[in-house]
Amino acid sequence: MKAHHLDAYFVTSQDAHASEYVCSADERRSFLTGFSGSAGSALVTAEKALLWTDSRYFLQAEKQLAGTEWVLMRQLQPGVPEFSDWALEHLKGKCVGVDPRFISAETSEDWTSKWGSSVQLKEIGTNLVDAIWTTRPEDPCNAVQVHPLNLAGETIESKLKRLREAISAEGASVILLSALDQIAWLFNLRGSDIEYNPVFFAYAAVFQNTAILFLRCLDASDGLPDEVLGHLKGASVEVRPYKQFFTEIANLLKPEEKVFLEPSSSSLALMGLVRHDLRVTGISPVEKFKACKNSVEIEALKQACKRDSLALCELFASLEAKLSLSESEQVPITEVDVDEMMKDCRRRQPSYVADSFPTISSVGSNSAVVHYQPERDSCKRLLATEMYLIDTGGQYKDGTTDVTRTMHFGCPTEEQKRIYTRVLQGHIALASAVFPEGTPGLLLDAFARGPLWKDGLEYGHGTGHGIGAYLNVHEGPAQIGGGAVPGDKILCNERRRRIFLMPIQAGFFLSDEPGCYKDGEFGVRIESDILATPAETPYKMSTRRFLKFEYLTLVPMCRKLVDVSLLSVSEQQWIDSYHARVWEELRSSLHSEAQNWLWEATRPLKA
Amino acid sequence: MKAHHLDAYFVTSQDAHASEYVCSADERRSFLTGFSGSAGSALVTAEKALLWTDSRYFLQAEKQLAGTEWVLMRQLQPGVPEFSDWALEHLKGKCVGVDPRFISAETSEDWTSKWGSSVQLKEIGTNLVDAIWTTRPEDPCNAVQVHPLNLAGETIESKLKRLREAISAEGASVILLSALDQIAWLFNLRGSDIEYNPVFFAYAAVFQNTAILFLRCLDASDGLPDEVLGHLKGASVEVRPYKQFFTEIANLLKPEEKVFLEPSSSSLALMGLVRHDLRVTGISPVEKFKACKNSVEIEALKQACKRDSLALCELFASLEAKLSLSESEQVPITEVDVDEMMKDCRRRQPSYVADSFPTISSVGSNSAVVHYQPERDSCKRLLATEMYLIDTGGQYKDGTTDVTRTMHFGCPTEEQKRIYTRVLQGHIALASAVFPEGTPGLLLDAFARGPLWKDGLEYGHGTGHGIGAYLNVHEGPAQIGGGAVPGDKILCNERRRRIFLMPIQAGFFLSDEPGCYKDGEFGVRIESDILATPAETPYKMSTRRFLKFEYLTLVPMCRKLVDVSLLSVSEQQWIDSYHARVWEELRSSLHSEAQNWLWEATRPLKA
Repeated sequence: MKAHHLDAYFVTSQDAHASEYVCSADERRSFLTGFSGSAGSALVTAEKALLWTDSRYFLQAEKQLAGTEWVLMRQLQPGVPEFSDWALEHLKGKCVGVDPRFISAETSEDWTSKWGSSVQLKEIGTNLVDAIWTTRPEDPCNAVQVHPLNLAGETIESKLKRLREAISAEGASVILLSALDQIAWLFNLRGSDIEYNPVFFAYAAVFQNTAILFLRCLDASDGLPDEVLGHLKGASVEVRPYKQFFTEIANLLKPEEKVFLEPSSSSLALMGLVRHDLRVTGISPVEKFKACKNSVEIEALKQACKRDSLALCELFASLEAKLSLSESEQVPITEVDVDEMMKDCRRRQPSYVADSFPTISSVGSNSAVVHYQPERDSCKRLLATEMYLIDTGGQYKDGTTDVTRTMHFGCPTEEQKRIYTRVLQGHIALASAVFPEGTPGLLLDAFARGPLWKDGLEYGHGTGHGIGAYLNVHEGPAQIGGGAVPGDKILCNERRRRIFLMPIQAGFFLSDEPGCYKDGEFGVRIESDILATPAETPYKMSTRRFLKFEYLTLVPMCRKLVDVSLLSVSEQQWIDSYHARVWEELRSSLHSEAQNWLWEATRPLKA
Repeated sequence: MKAHHLDAYFVTSQDAHASEYVCSADERRSFLTGFSGSAGSALVTAEKALLWTDSRYFLQAEKQLAGTEWVLMRQLQPGVPEFSDWALEHLKGKCVGVDPRFISAETSEDWTSKWGSSVQLKEIGTNLVDAIWTTRPEDPCNAVQVHPLNLAGETIESKLKRLREAISAEGASVILLSALDQIAWLFNLRGSDIEYNPVFFAYAAVFQNTAILFLRCLDASDGLPDEVLGHLKGASVEVRPYKQFFTEIANLLKPEEKVFLEPSSSSLALMGLVRHDLRVTGISPVEKFKACKNSVEIEALKQACKRDSLALCELFASLEAKLSLSESEQVPITEVDVDEMMKDCRRRQPSYVADSFPTISSVGSNSAVVHYQPERDSCKRLLATEMYLIDTGGQYKDGTTDVTRTMHFGCPTEEQKRIYTRVLQGHIALASAVFPEGTPGLLLDAFARGPLWKDGLEYGHGTGHGIGAYLNVHEGPAQIGGGAVPGDKILCNERRRRIFLMPIQAGFFLSDEPGCYKDGEFGVRIESDILATPAETPYKMSTRRFLKFEYLTLVPMCRKLVDVSLLSVSEQQWIDSYHARVWEELRSSLHSEAQNWLWEATRPLKA
């Protein structure tokens, strides 16, 4: 820091592509602080060492920072300033260094516009953490695989054509892509550089006549497998080494050429390649295209969801069998054990690749912790006397899934049943909504929350997020709500308002996951994957077509947690017909234990 | 125009206070164009004369402009530019004149920021329409009356104290008020300068230690009635003539003093009194205070709603009686006749002052015209074979109402019943919603539209607007939706997004008015007035209290238009218990004919 004349150095948890998950080689903040949570930022000054993280990680951070000089800054807690405000107070006239690759252009712009001339943000080319991180793992540069047309459903040429039209319409002739899932989608490629995400490290530059893919797997090796090479050559896509991206782009961009950039996924360094007045910024057209699944992707997703549902049914069947044994015969099963059982069940399914995120396997009070992560030494044992919540997803060659079910293997309390049923009613209300195409996600959020609100129940997370087609489990641009409504924090700025008001379109593949959490007691969340698709309605009294949701997940609800007396006739019918469908579609693919379990689990509520 | 070196002159339909309704002396655009609709703007150039208005008025404008050189610009129709865009195309390098009193600061800022240096907006002190409008009526300057504390519920002193705190918190020491309803509310006064709105022409300036009210009624006479004078003196409010406002404010404002101004209700001329860097802009705190009715206002509103409901029940009773006569005995009743009958019914109610807006009285296909205005010579006759929609409201000393009922006095078709029932389901869904305080109005809109969407039904207007307490029938800041969702037009800019996301608070008095319209056939709208009030819920799982709506209007739904087979059990219970309540609360105040009608109208649906 001295050498660079810095008063402070800011370390984010981001990689160079603003990825939600990062590879171990990019866990600079974890190395520096010893805090291993996925979200958080660190600041080092001559005197202080501060770590900002959110409520999901307070306990973990307290443990891991204990006995160090790191001070925990609890985000969004009363009296705790965000870093940018803290800096205004403590770093007036001072200079803060950042590595411009590891901070998004959006974030740095927010800071500098807030700071004006009172705090200086200095871009430091060499990373000061890497300089002391002698044991830093190699940057992953695994081979990339072709995502075949019978799963992608659209050729690279077609995607590039649409993209070029879109950026021209915005007044740009080039687009620089940094978001790894956007690049994987655009070039029909998949990778394995980041756990849970089938992506690979790359940048892409799409010009009107050429497209260049900068692949990290070329940094090491000097070539690509013929299949991949042919795949890209066929679409006249050039490939070059990742490490040459920044130097080459500078030469490739013609003077006065307008360049489209997405500030949320572009690093400060990437943005810096283009002069301010030549930037065209906004949500990347690729992000918008990717969200609308095509008919081939939809058919593939249905298959993936069905196989993932089979795996979950087999899990629940064997859990119920194990828990129904007499005390003496029972082998204890922990939250972590269930996670491993789940993986085994998925491995038995064709074209399973990996999980799409770390499984949340939580018993009793742990299920009230929204982002709970069980650990071998501290996790709870599964008991028939407690609620059990599992939130888990799989990556399959033909699709990505994200499912939550809350179960009780014994006798639930009346309160557990009431809260479960309210959450289920919200889940059904959204799943069975009909709405004009383009309705903002925020409006649909009301359907899911309405039934909970009637009881004074609320949940502090979003109701739905976009899901990739064998890509990231969380993707944009649209979402359904994004935290307890109303949250000042949620609609606090124009950028966020735009996201919440993003129109829902046919082909969007989304999660439907209302929940409810009683701290220290139990939590309920019910999540399935749904697809926005045109609806047949008696009238068509709108300039837009009407959409409904197709329900792709086929895992029964927990019958014994349903308080039928709280249900409307149509809600009861919805559950019974859903269960009948689950039975019909899954029965023949299940072995006898699971089939018996499914038969019981899908009986009519009043039978 | 030549004398002022203008290439064009723009004439709005606004008065100096951005009022929704204007007095005849302010109908400059109507005088100039001959088009008498309430909304529209005119532009005159050396060659052209253009009139912009919205779809509500296309037919009327075509008629009234026929044979003149005025060209009708149909707003929001494909290929029809807004004035500001039209100007960019046709008035490059030219100069457009406006009277700065009759255009809002907000609008003019939108134009100038869009135009940059390519079109010049010139403020012309003398009004060019008034110069040729020799028969222009006198500016109204009727006497003002005290709105007594037993109806206002809060003293002027208390309101001024809260206001001063609010503007200080925003960093201003003065606020200049121009919105007539804000001024009437703040000083507990009412007037009669504008039809349908119990307001009076005035400006107000509130400083930290003084408050000055500039009253037009002082321009003519040289004093106020002792009662009003005492009322204001008691709160140490100074009064001065309206015509001196602009000259005196210039002297009253201290140099470097920050001034709060509301751009949407302040004219360009008013805004011009304050240097740019001294302006603090936003929604006026008075607008926010006014929206939250206090307990005294709430009790008064309930009484006003009850008496207005009695008037409507008497109307429907006598309509039904008249229509049930044999053809030979029947005297034809027109849409206009019904409006007059309605006024008679209201006049029989204590403390009725006037209507709160022009009654929409519409038979059959006319009911599909959302803002239909019947006219004596062209209006339809009420028939038992057609649907009838009446949207009407009253101004009472103790409150303002806005009610719509759709009736059928014969045998409705299955389609009429289905559409009526869907609208009713939306109406009930909103009326029975429970939600955390602060939920944006846009979310609640989903409850009203959801049941219609399931049938592919939609309506192109908002679902709810604020209503004053013996003030304007439309008031801000919150509303529930604002047109068909999703409308690009609706969420097109940040200012509009903010309005749609405005939080709903306890004490808000709102309309609940979903509808559905089959062009050329019939329309359905069901509107009642509801009050946001704290809800008792089994749980309180939110940082905010939960709210529900109290239903103040007591006019039965049309039983024969309800298709019970489409209702859920709870919807049916809602209607039956509402009808039971209406019968209980109104029966004793009705004469026998109306009482018999009410008895029939409020019988259980399945009786």
